Amino acid sequence: MVDICGEEDDFATHGLRAFNHIFQDIVRPVRSGALRAQPGKEGKVTVLVGGGSGHYPTFCGFVGPGFADAVVMGGIFASPSIQAVATIGRLAHRGGGIVMGFGNYAGDNLNFGIAAERLRAEGIDTRIVVTTDDVASAPSDTPERRRGVAGDIIVFKIMGAAADEGYDIDAVEAVSRKANDHTRSFGIAFDGCALPGAPEKIFTVAEGRMALGLGIHGEPGIEERDIAAPAEIAAELYQRVMAERPPEARRLAVLLNGAGATATEELFVLWNELEVLFERDGLTLVAPLVGSYATSLDMYGCSLTITWLDQELERFWRAPVNSPALCRHAVEGDWVPASRQSVAELPVHYERAETADAARAGQCIARAMALLSRTMQEHEAMLGRIDAIAGDGDHGQGMARGARAAARGARRAADEGAGARTVMEAAADAWGDRAGGTSGALWGEALFAFSTLLDDRSSLSAATVRQGMIKAARRVRQIGKAEPGDKTLVDALAPFVSALEEARPEAETIAASWNKAVARAHEGAEATKAFAARRGRAKTHGNHSLGHPDPGALSFALAMEALAALMDDLA
Amino acid sequence: MVDICGEEDDFATHGLRAFNHIFQDIVRPVRSGALRAQPGKEGKVTVLVGGGSGHYPTFCGFVGPGFADAVVMGGIFASPSIQAVATIGRLAHRGGGIVMGFGNYAGDNLNFGIAAERLRAEGIDTRIVVTTDDVASAPSDTPERRRGVAGDIIVFKIMGAAADEGYDIDAVEAVSRKANDHTRSFGIAFDGCALPGAPEKIFTVAEGRMALGLGIHGEPGIEERDIAAPAEIAAELYQRVMAERPPEARRLAVLLNGAGATATEELFVLWNELEVLFERDGLTLVAPLVGSYATSLDMYGCSLTITWLDQELERFWRAPVNSPALCRHAVEGDWVPASRQSVAELPVHYERAETADAARAGQCIARAMALLSRTMQEHEAMLGRIDAIAGDGDHGQGMARGARAAARGARRAADEGAGARTVMEAAADAWGDRAGGTSGALWGEALFAFSTLLDDRSSLSAATVRQGMIKAARRVRQIGKAEPGDKTLVDALAPFVSALEEARPEAETIAASWNKAVARAHEGAEATKAFAARRGRAKTHGNHSLGHPDPGALSFALAMEALAALMDDLA
Repeated sequence: MVDICGEEDDFATHGLRAFNHIFQDIVRPVRSGALRAQPGKEGKVTVLVGGGSGHYPTFCGFVGPGFADAVVMGGIFASPSIQAVATIGRLAHRGGGIVMGFGNYAGDNLNFGIAAERLRAEGIDTRIVVTTDDVASAPSDTPERRRGVAGDIIVFKIMGAAADEGYDIDAVEAVSRKANDHTRSFGIAFDGCALPGAPEKIFTVAEGRMALGLGIHGEPGIEERDIAAPAEIAAELYQRVMAERPPEARRLAVLLNGAGATATEELFVLWNELEVLFERDGLTLVAPLVGSYATSLDMYGCSLTITWLDQELERFWRAPVNSPALCRHAVEGDWVPASRQSVAELPVHYERAETADAARAGQCIARAMALLSRTMQEHEAMLGRIDAIAGDGDHGQGMARGARAAARGARRAADEGAGARTVMEAAADAWGDRAGGTSGALWGEALFAFSTLLDDRSSLSAATVRQGMIKAARRVRQIGKAEPGDKTLVDALAPFVSALEEARPEAETIAASWNKAVARAHEGAEATKAFAARRGRAKTHGNHSLGHPDPGALSFALAMEALAALMDDLA
Repeated sequence: MVDICGEEDDFATHGLRAFNHIFQDIVRPVRSGALRAQPGKEGKVTVLVGGGSGHYPTFCGFVGPGFADAVVMGGIFASPSIQAVATIGRLAHRGGGIVMGFGNYAGDNLNFGIAAERLRAEGIDTRIVVTTDDVASAPSDTPERRRGVAGDIIVFKIMGAAADEGYDIDAVEAVSRKANDHTRSFGIAFDGCALPGAPEKIFTVAEGRMALGLGIHGEPGIEERDIAAPAEIAAELYQRVMAERPPEARRLAVLLNGAGATATEELFVLWNELEVLFERDGLTLVAPLVGSYATSLDMYGCSLTITWLDQELERFWRAPVNSPALCRHAVEGDWVPASRQSVAELPVHYERAETADAARAGQCIARAMALLSRTMQEHEAMLGRIDAIAGDGDHGQGMARGARAAARGARRAADEGAGARTVMEAAADAWGDRAGGTSGALWGEALFAFSTLLDDRSSLSAATVRQGMIKAARRVRQIGKAEPGDKTLVDALAPFVSALEEARPEAETIAASWNKAVARAHEGAEATKAFAARRGRAKTHGNHSLGHPDPGALSFALAMEALAALMDDLA
């Protein structure tokens, strides 16, 4: 926040100017605020909201059909002036009076309050609805002392929908007050925010700690704790907003809000934990929102807001809206808990082997996969350590995950009586799907290539295994594009397959050839280990690259070594 | 990013699960991705996009009417598997073939590429369109080596709209390739990102520096520089994406994208600077987007993407869309540059004074405001320094800004021949509107209260001035709710007004009374200065609070002192 933005003043006024330019399909600029580009119906109640800047999309993002008619914006964390509120009120008035919505802050109360007096003196019926959703800011017996925070979005959305539906000013005021009475929020901060151009944050939270109940301008919270796991954070937020739950309340609007620097994906992780709590308590969610809707510049944190819905509130919460902050068609249906959502799937069906020999061959492939899986689990940590030297350290994990999935997939197919080809295909797909990374794709494709030499009628022969390995190696070379010496899987795979190719099946058993090939594979893998040791910690990371150096040669050699035990069974 | 999220794996899979739950009105869950909740028309071309996680709302946010039919998500910064792509392709296929869209990364090319082969082998016509918009990733003569970054949003939006309009697979492929050919992006990072659970960032940018041309997974940029002002950053981004502008290109889609930790309001500040460059070069914007659409976890930075529009591309860019990432009604009209937008305003009209005396009284008020303004400019820095000790240091600035605005407003009204009341009202409104903060509201209201004792017929009398000050003081006490001793304006205002009240007009001139009152005001202000000195740097900040200690008493005393010069003129 300190970096690319100049003075505080410029930040707010320039930001508003840009906002009015970017969203000119929805809003029309006015000094210190925005109006709807297409004014609402004549005679309608005007919904005018506002407050300080620094909370985007709160408040200017709320203007548009189904939401506010106008917004008045102050400087950063500062109320707009009396004059700005009154002027925008006059411009936005459509003849039906004005309902003003803003958070319960002294500056806003003063400026909106006096502006409302002026408008009333001019004959414009003007009402005020102050949001007070932050349960941390005062006890429940003094709600009038509570601050308005992210609850603004839900309360003002309902206010805007009611006014657009044609409610008169008494009814808009009443439904908005009810919406606020039904709304609770609680926030947690992991770190503070800095004003544009300021060298320091307004407040900070110590590393590894979190501040509970913090406001959206750095108002003091109620306590500090060590940062907890997502499940505990979710439980804390949940319990705080639920503490004042009315006994009959069952249906609710929910907003899990990011404070500014919080990634939406982080909110998603937290949402998973929250969602099970709602389900546990038999509560029904309607059109939940997850995202950064009420921010505090670059504050790192989140808040949970809930609004208990009755029929009237629910109708307005579901109503369509088209504003910069929130664009939704009319929302239908109740939210199904994640655990009961219908997940799209392809039917799984394994062809049964045509002969008993073929079914035995299927079992043999499944045993091979079980051996691979066991050896990969054994070496997982060691492979991870070697990988961490030059790569991102996930090779052991990926191999273990892939081999485990392959073993399970193969076992399932074999137990349903599938033949070698079907079992191998199941293993290939499971490995490729679950392992992740390049090595997962290569192993999946290698097994898949191998499977194309098999069928569901025959037993497994030594010749087929030899040919299968050659085909698998070819596929790896084709798609991985690595050469021997590139410090990849190929460093072991190539000598292994050469050894199999050089072997004379008429003169030695497959078991003997296999063991020689395994020895060659281990020789090939030595170079990788040496390379990793030299390379040190100059890491590459995550740009979806193929074939970066990893201990793939070593894991391959270990895998082939494990399979040697099966070779005696082959004809 | 390190704080509330567990392992990398969980982060991506849990995040996707939450996404599919939250947006269940738009999407339907599938393992490793999402489908549209309401599948598109039978026979339509299926648009399937995807890539790694960690870029939200890229890619899962792109599913919905007018956008993609399905999305396939990998782990963090990792491609989805062949199996996931193929499975989701089969589930999403509506009979019209599949066009796959993804960025040009080795892992994605491998996994989507092989999945496409599989689908083709099963009889599903499958095409691939790879995005290559990042101009920093390779020279213009090797576009096939360029990465796909934020351009994805525009290219896939056009792809999705074409498929929903009923284009056949050749046409969808062709228009998508054209969209990509017309798209360029360039990014700047101010700081790197950390993987969930990782103790360190993948990369860092040194304090005060910015990295040009960085990729979205920490791929190396092309150079590093000192952080520049917004105008220079805008010029850099602009020049980079414009370097390959086709000679006839005039109309464009634009995305100013935040990398994750960048506040939208920061992007707005940058947008102002960019927008003037588009206007300068006579370019026409169509439905620009500003926000965090292609992120890299918590990376701090931004990118600019432009797509040169021909009629066909523009039609699809303007088409309605309803996805988690982007919800827009059909967009009409060209974007008017900010400098030419029509700003809503109330007409300004000053009543002319009814008599020459009254016009002279108006001039006298204007002179008073000019004196106030001059003295506030003189003391601005000193007042700021004192305020910074206990407050946020903006008192001097606010007073200077308010008084300057009041002087201008009064001068304009007086020059149009307005009387005392109208001139004072103009001054009050301008002060209250421009000063900001509580002191601005108080001064504006004080002047306004004073104005209600005036009229546009009479000259200004000593009695009126005395009464006006008493009325103004009452208004300040009424709305500010501060008491003498609270270290606010009231500490000087109260003794000042008491002195005026105690004065005997029959025995001394207003000038004499005024001077005594000024001395009392200065005495009252002394306490504030002493308090500020004791208080040290325990600051309060920005929570819209009223009446926190500030040098308001001192600025008031100085203001009244400046006005003494006018008192001799009063009868």
